[in-house]
This record gives sequence, C-alpha cells and structure tokens, in this order.
Amino acid sequence: MLHILEHLSVAGCAISGVLAARGKQIDLFGVIVLALVTAFGGGTVRDITLGDLPVFWTRDPAFLLNAVVVAIATFYIARRRHFPLTALLVADALALALFAVIGAQKALAMQMAPSVAITMGIITGVAGGIIRDLLTGDIPVVFRKETHFYATAAFCGCAVYVLLASFCPTDSQRNVVTGVAITLLLRLASIRWKVTLPVFEPVET
Amino acid sequence: MLHILEHLSVAGCAISGVLAARGKQIDLFGVIVLALVTAFGGGTVRDITLGDLPVFWTRDPAFLLNAVVVAIATFYIARRRHFPLTALLVADALALALFAVIGAQKALAMQMAPSVAITMGIITGVAGGIIRDLLTGDIPVVFRKETHFYATAAFCGCAVYVLLASFCPTDSQRNVVTGVAITLLLRLASIRWKVTLPVFEPVET
Amino acid sequence: MLHILEHLSVAGCAISGVLAARGKQIDLFGVIVLALVTAFGGGTVRDITLGDLPVFWTRDPAFLLNAVVVAIATFYIARRRHFPLTALLVADALALALFAVIGAQKALAMQMAPSVAITMGIITGVAGGIIRDLLTGDIPVVFRKETHFYATAAFCGCAVYVLLASFCPTDSQRNVVTGVAITLLLRLASIRWKVTLPVFEPVET
Repeated sequence: MLHILEHLSVAGCAISGVLAARGKQIDLFGVIVLALVTAFGGGTVRDITLGDLPVFWTRDPAFLLNAVVVAIATFYIARRRHFPLTALLVADALALALFAVIGAQKALAMQMAPSVAITMGIITGVAGGIIRDLLTGDIPVVFRKETHFYATAAFCGCAVYVLLASFCPTDSQRNVVTGVAITLLLRLASIRWKVTLPVFEPVET
Repeated sequence: MLHILEHLSVAGCAISGVLAARGKQIDLFGVIVLALVTAFGGGTVRDITLGDLPVFWTRDPAFLLNAVVVAIATFYIARRRHFPLTALLVADALALALFAVIGAQKALAMQMAPSVAITMGIITGVAGGIIRDLLTGDIPVVFRKETHFYATAAFCGCAVYVLLASFCPTDSQRNVVTGVAITLLLRLASIRWKVTLPVFEPVET
Repeated sequence: MLHILEHLSVAGCAISGVLAARGKQIDLFGVIVLALVTAFGGGTVRDITLGDLPVFWTRDPAFLLNAVVVAIATFYIARRRHFPLTALLVADALALALFAVIGAQKALAMQMAPSVAITMGIITGVAGGIIRDLLTGDIPVVFRKETHFYATAAFCGCAVYVLLASFCPTDSQRNVVTGVAITLLLRLASIRWKVTLPVFEPVET
C-alpha cells in the first residue's frame, strides 16, 4: 500500500510541477523537467545526504515512467480544461505528508538520531517544491508569507512519527499512517482557516 | 580522443560561463566560479546521483587547471575583443552533446535501466548551464521560450545512443559518435531554422 | 579548540541566515530553514562532493541543536533590538575562514591534489551563503560588485594552508591557524579599505 501511495505522491508532484510552468512560456520538455524535479527533488536530496546511492529513482524506472506520463498528460489536459484547485491542493499536501514521513522513516532505519530524522523528513517533504520554485524564478513556497503551515506541518507529522517509532517500534504501519495524517490535516486545516506562524519583522537597522 | 573532446567541452563551458557574467558587474573571482560551475556542474550532479564519488574533477586536476586558465584568458580577452557568437554557439552545442552522451554511457556502465541512462545523459548535459543561470539570476536556458531544441536535442541523442549500445554493444566508439552527432546537429539545426516545441499555455484559471 | 570554533562558526552562520530574512516576510519556520542552510550548506556540498557520506551534521546532532537554538533566539531578539553590524561582519568572516580551511584540510586528508583541496576549501566557505542568497532571491554574495574580497580571501587562506600542509605537515594546528588568520584578515581588511578585484566589463557585443 505504501508503494501505491508513493506513486500517487509522485504523480501529484508531477502535476504541481507542470502547473508551476503556467504563464511562463516553457516548452513541453522544460515542463517535463519541472515535473521530474518536483517529484524526485526531495528524495534525491535525502538519498544524497544520507549516502544511500545511487538515488531511489535510478533503481526503479517505474517512478520515472509515472512522472513523465503524468506530466505529458497534464500538459495537454491543462491546455483545454481547468484543473480543480482543491484537488491539486490535496494532492500536493498528500505528497508533502508522505514524502516527509518516508524520509524520516528512512533516516531512522539508517540509525540517525531523532532530531536528524525529523530534519531529513522535512527536507524530503519540501526540497522538491523549493527546487521547482528556484527554477521558475518564484519565491520558494517555504518562504512565502501566505504559505500557512507547510514545513511546519511536515515538522509536526515527522516529530510525532519519530516519537511513535521510538516508543512503539512494533506497529510500523500505524506509526506511518499517524505521521502522514497529522501532516496532511495540519496542512489542509491551516489553508482552510488561514493559520500562519509569526513573521520575521526585525527593528529597522 | 574522447579525452581531448572532454577537455574541449570543459573549455567551451568555461567560456560560456564567463560570458554569462557580461553586464553583471561580477569580479574576476566570481567569473572563475561561474566558469567552474558551468563546466563541472553537469558531471558533478551525475556522479553524485549515481554515487560515483568523489566526483570526477577531484580525481584529475587537469580539468580544474583547464577551466581556470580558459576562464582567466576569456576574462581578459573579452574586455578587448568581440567573441564570435557563432563559435560560442557551436562550442556550447558540442559541450551539450558530449556531456550528454558521456553521462548516458556512464549510467549504462553502472547497469542503469535505459530510461534512467537517458535521463542521466540529459542531466549531465544541461545541469551546468542551469546552475550557471540560477547563480546569475537569469531564466535557466531550458525554460526560455526562444531556446529551440536543447534538452530535447540531448534527449534524442542519448536515446539513439542507448538504443545502439543495447543492440550493437561491440562498437562503442561509433555509438558515442552517433549520439554526439545527433545531439549536435539537432541543436544547431533548431537554432538555424528556429524550431521549437509547443509551449505550455493552459486555459486561464 | 577546533571543535569550539566550529560551533561558533555554525552559530555565526545561523545568525547571518536569520538576518538575511529581514524585510522578506518569512515566517519562523522559513527563518530556521535559512539558518540551517547557511550553517550547513558549505560542509554538506563538501561532504557530498568528496563522497564522505552521510554528511557531517547527520553524525552529530549537537550542530543541529546549536543552529536551531541560535536561529530562534536571533528571530526573537532581532524583533526588538538592533544587531551591531560590525559584530555580524566579524562572525561571518570567521565562519568563512574556518569553514574554508577545514574544507581544505578534509580534502587533503582524503588524498586530494593541492588544487582540488583549495577548490574544496573555497566551496566549503562560500556555498552556504550562496544557497541562502538563492533561496531569498538575492544576488549571491560572491557575485556582488561591492563584495570586496570574499571567495578571494578564502582562496588565499586555503592556498597558504595547503602549501604549509605540504611542506611542514608536522605542525597541523599552526597551519590551520595561519590559514584561518589570513582569510579572516584579508576579508576584514578588504571591507575596511574597500579593496575589490577588477570587474568583468567586456566590449559591447
């Protein structure tokens, strides 16, 4: 089941990568590049930092195929039809939640300290979107003021997951589901009710 | 011969890195950094992703020397004389073609699937230019609408190379030359006759 | 003592990462991300390129704790009080100097050629600040015309360190201190007396 969810997340990220190209006059190939970067960026940074090489998508071409097919389909569909924004937000939040918890899980499996595992989870969740935004010249989603909980949601979900994994290591599946659910709910709730963290406004210097 | 061509590509990339600094008030050292990033970016991302560490340029200082000397020479020459734009375009296209096919070759040698090898070839060909453009604040060349075939050319050349390498693995040199020639010709022909891929223009949302 | 200085550098970078968020409406979590990226970016790129994985901060959670605590403290203090700019410049220069020489030292310890070790030192010193500036949409400090000696100072300090390490390998501590001092003094002197390198101004094309 985790495997299916992972493919769903990759597909969700690929769609969000394609839609980020909106209004920027990027051609079909550039759009596929954006989709791949968004879908694989987080996991690639995670695998490189942890030293688990070659990175995950080189070991299972199904991921590559999935992202490319979804990107091309989105490219042609989006020229004709509106994408329901809510569906996209949910897909994006699900990808954030899944990638984050999977990242933390992998770091724990490699004997990393809890704080490192949480950090690795956040990186896995947000890095793909950050690289996508860098490439298209947008302000990375993590640094926008209207972002609501994003990295914050990933942090909470990963922290709960790491706690559960330390104290009840036997029920791995329930721990993952709990972490994913917390991230997902916090992300969606913060969008729905417009919750934000305090913003950095230093005294003038 | 491959080795000489590789050094030629590094030199071509170094020149294009230096010229990207034009009009941006970057000092000599920043210009050298740009040259190195353009010349080594693609291969570095390839080696890291494949896990072939330390990366290639740390194992042969001749690459470093080549890029630094070419960068400094270009820095001083370009303050006095015009660079022929056509020569630059050809050098840049040759570097794209060589880096792409070498990247695909290396991935195949590490037992990667064909689709992964093609992706790795494209990454090796375009990553250096993307990082260069990120650092100077330009829109990455892959995402510009007037780009013509760029990543697309690398894709076609790598795809043909990977096909040839699967079906006629005995004549390695001919396969490489074919892949490089296809990338190079597609790139130059698309510039000459202004061929582009369809651009992403979604319905308004 | 090196260990204490390293933690000081991490703290200095974390502060500079937080202050880079000034006036950009970034929330608390984004600010922490910036602090971590600035503090760990250089060493992460160094470890990845050299293949010394997993990267250093995953092996000692004290670094992570240090950077996060300093970032949160700076976040709240900077909302109330001015930061003395001079103190920040010195902290930043110290971090540049330490990171650069430590990077060169690590590369030498892994049997890299002198020119590669110097390059690795420069990368370790400047990469964190470059990634920070990319994320906040600023021109990277290495490419600003008012930068004075920055990568240049790291180059000189690393070059002297690598020379000393080759010819007098017995007194490791003195070599490190010399390299750090040269980088630090060049950086601060170039700010004080506004020294810059020649800027790239090609003929019009």
